[in-house]
Amino acid sequence: MAEPFDAVDVIRTKRDRGELTAGQIDWVVDAYTRGVVAEEQMSALAMAILLNGMSRAEVSRWTAAMIATGERMSFAGLSRPTADKHSTGGVGDKITLPLAPLVASFGVAVPQLSGRGLGHTGGTLDKLESIPGWRAALSNEELMSQLDTVGAVICAAGSGLAPADRKLYALRDVTGTVEAIPLIASSIMSKKIAEGTGALVLDVKVGSGAFMKTAEDARTLARTMVDLGTDAGVRTVALLTDMSVPLGLTAGNALEVRESVEVLAGGGPADVVELTVALAVEMLAAADRPADPDDVRAALADGRAMDSWRAMIAAQGGDVDAPLPVAKEATTVVAPSSGVLATLDAYAVGVAAWRLGAGRARKEDPVQAGAGIELHAKPGDRVSAGQVLMTLHTDTPERFARAEEALVGGWSVVPEGAPGIIPAPLVLDRIA
Amino acid sequence: MAEPFDAVDVIRTKRDRGELTAGQIDWVVDAYTRGVVAEEQMSALAMAILLNGMSRAEVSRWTAAMIATGERMSFAGLSRPTADKHSTGGVGDKITLPLAPLVASFGVAVPQLSGRGLGHTGGTLDKLESIPGWRAALSNEELMSQLDTVGAVICAAGSGLAPADRKLYALRDVTGTVEAIPLIASSIMSKKIAEGTGALVLDVKVGSGAFMKTAEDARTLARTMVDLGTDAGVRTVALLTDMSVPLGLTAGNALEVRESVEVLAGGGPADVVELTVALAVEMLAAADRPADPDDVRAALADGRAMDSWRAMIAAQGGDVDAPLPVAKEATTVVAPSSGVLATLDAYAVGVAAWRLGAGRARKEDPVQAGAGIELHAKPGDRVSAGQVLMTLHTDTPERFARAEEALVGGWSVVPEGAPGIIPAPLVLDRIA
Repeated sequence: MAEPFDAVDVIRTKRDRGELTAGQIDWVVDAYTRGVVAEEQMSALAMAILLNGMSRAEVSRWTAAMIATGERMSFAGLSRPTADKHSTGGVGDKITLPLAPLVASFGVAVPQLSGRGLGHTGGTLDKLESIPGWRAALSNEELMSQLDTVGAVICAAGSGLAPADRKLYALRDVTGTVEAIPLIASSIMSKKIAEGTGALVLDVKVGSGAFMKTAEDARTLARTMVDLGTDAGVRTVALLTDMSVPLGLTAGNALEVRESVEVLAGGGPADVVELTVALAVEMLAAADRPADPDDVRAALADGRAMDSWRAMIAAQGGDVDAPLPVAKEATTVVAPSSGVLATLDAYAVGVAAWRLGAGRARKEDPVQAGAGIELHAKPGDRVSAGQVLMTLHTDTPERFARAEEALVGGWSVVPEGAPGIIPAPLVLDRIA
Repeated sequence: MAEPFDAVDVIRTKRDRGELTAGQIDWVVDAYTRGVVAEEQMSALAMAILLNGMSRAEVSRWTAAMIATGERMSFAGLSRPTADKHSTGGVGDKITLPLAPLVASFGVAVPQLSGRGLGHTGGTLDKLESIPGWRAALSNEELMSQLDTVGAVICAAGSGLAPADRKLYALRDVTGTVEAIPLIASSIMSKKIAEGTGALVLDVKVGSGAFMKTAEDARTLARTMVDLGTDAGVRTVALLTDMSVPLGLTAGNALEVRESVEVLAGGGPADVVELTVALAVEMLAAADRPADPDDVRAALADGRAMDSWRAMIAAQGGDVDAPLPVAKEATTVVAPSSGVLATLDAYAVGVAAWRLGAGRARKEDPVQAGAGIELHAKPGDRVSAGQVLMTLHTDTPERFARAEEALVGGWSVVPEGAPGIIPAPLVLDRIA
């Protein structure tokens, strides 16, 4: 037998709360990728990791082993420093769209290798694909050239980075082991480290619309990822941000592009602007191009960020001036009484937008560019009886009923002056 | 989708320390057997069960669901009551051989559906197959007829009982989940309950040579199995018995048959006789044919048990009077000094016998009928320098070196009067 370890021994070590050795980790990740460790063995190990955890040294080695299964990129040849951002995903989270060109307008290269959406949170590529002509797939040469000229790139991640992760994620998805924090952290960080960015800012969402429902879990995940980045020589910072209500006033692909363009034009919803600015400040600091929030806001106000956006979209074939797709049908949800919008649940809005056609249930499903939800009020806003609270958009009106169903109980209007409406701050914590 | 449950939901329930519903259990066991729940899903669930446990209601339902995947037998048509015994496996554990005919000689039907050995513990069928002509495979009709005439049957378990167990056991074997107590208990008990015995006595071994290394684990397993039997209407009792030293003076197929015949002839090693009598008393009580230990010893002394044995072996084609196979080569282990044999580790002896050819590493391997180990002293016995402590037998002498290696550190001789030699009692506890 040429294999230096036995899969059952490795599983037993973690099952019995032992610490996996570097040799065991290197072997099991590589042998799984080669098909020598079977799917059912890796799923038992994943469950043991989920329930018994991993030390910092173990997660770090696991991440390195995932990186070693694929290629590594390098941005060392660029004339500018690089900074990347990763969000754990939320409802209405279009921040990457204004953020990448905004940071690039300060002379920092922003390589945003992104994915498509699955489930109730949207995907950055799905959003940008609603712009006529825009294409997500770039060759490595195109990516490097665009980083050198425009500075900002949002494109599809190539399949060469950490191929073990793709195989492992598909397995975790069907075995109830997605929620293992060490595996979430190493999945995200293996790709970011392999990509070769010098600085990384993590937006770790917490709340009903996020993957992490509690601040404790979100903080653990953020801490694990920041440690992994730091151990790998990437300047890494995480912000813990609220995802109990949707970000901004739109959820859906073209709807979110429109809102992003409003931000780049110096307007847009206050929460989207606040988070975009906070993340930009972190990215610029991590890339050694410090700027204060006022500097950053100025770049939104005076059109520098918009110029970057137009150049970035045009470089990937997008027609910046073309009208965005609009869904064929719309319906509204109105306030039943006057008062204050007390709650607006991110998860409910996310599921409703998904059901309208903005998201997909399976990887191979198409998405509707125009589908989604516009919000006309946010928690704390005064509303009057009969006022439109939300507009639902879709090309397939038979979907309205199930979307409306998802919204039941997801929002509430209370009499003005009722107690208990305390808006959560948007940025909850910073972990470095 | 016609399936009433989702595998990931079932896995998540157990992962998050919830209690599986009867519906979830019935479905997941059946759907796994049908191939709808994938191997990697069941392995994640098995690991979650191992780490988070199961309630009495869950194990009971899981066992019922395993039984429901196959056929059930019934001994209701027999004129005698039935009693069965199951041992969790030990080194030198040949007790089934004298026990079945002994209990049968009291008018109780003993259907011992048995298996072959894997690893360091021997299999009952492997032992009996060293008798020239004896065959393990019986049809259901042959089994019933022999139970009616002879009373005792030791034969191969058919593949129709709890087929889910075969599939699940093979999976557990490669995923580090063999050790899950609820799954061990339901594996054993599903077959015993499906078999239809009225009474069942469990010999749960504890110690180095046993599957359960600690009395705590052995007691938990025994309790779980007794509860399962009781809940299913089978009168069930368990004895916790010591397996830190080998049972009797032989480990190996034909060697153990020879020792069993000595017991049936009224002789044999004291520990084998003691355990055979203790288990017989329990089986007879559970089958409503109570007898005290002296009655049972009398049946060994006066030839009634031997008559049963001869009839049982002959009914399955065995030549009771034929000489047993003897291995071609032998070597010895001698005492290096005079004193007392202080320790003799069951696991070391089991592994050595296995390496000599008495056991198999993979299901499809053959075993050697004559291979194994004869012990000439047990812990507490006085020995003199140069005295033979063990004789090792094999047809393939190139195996001696690795067998001797397994014995290193597995026994020790100390000066007479040295402190700390306290022989453990054989029967440690009784659980009903």
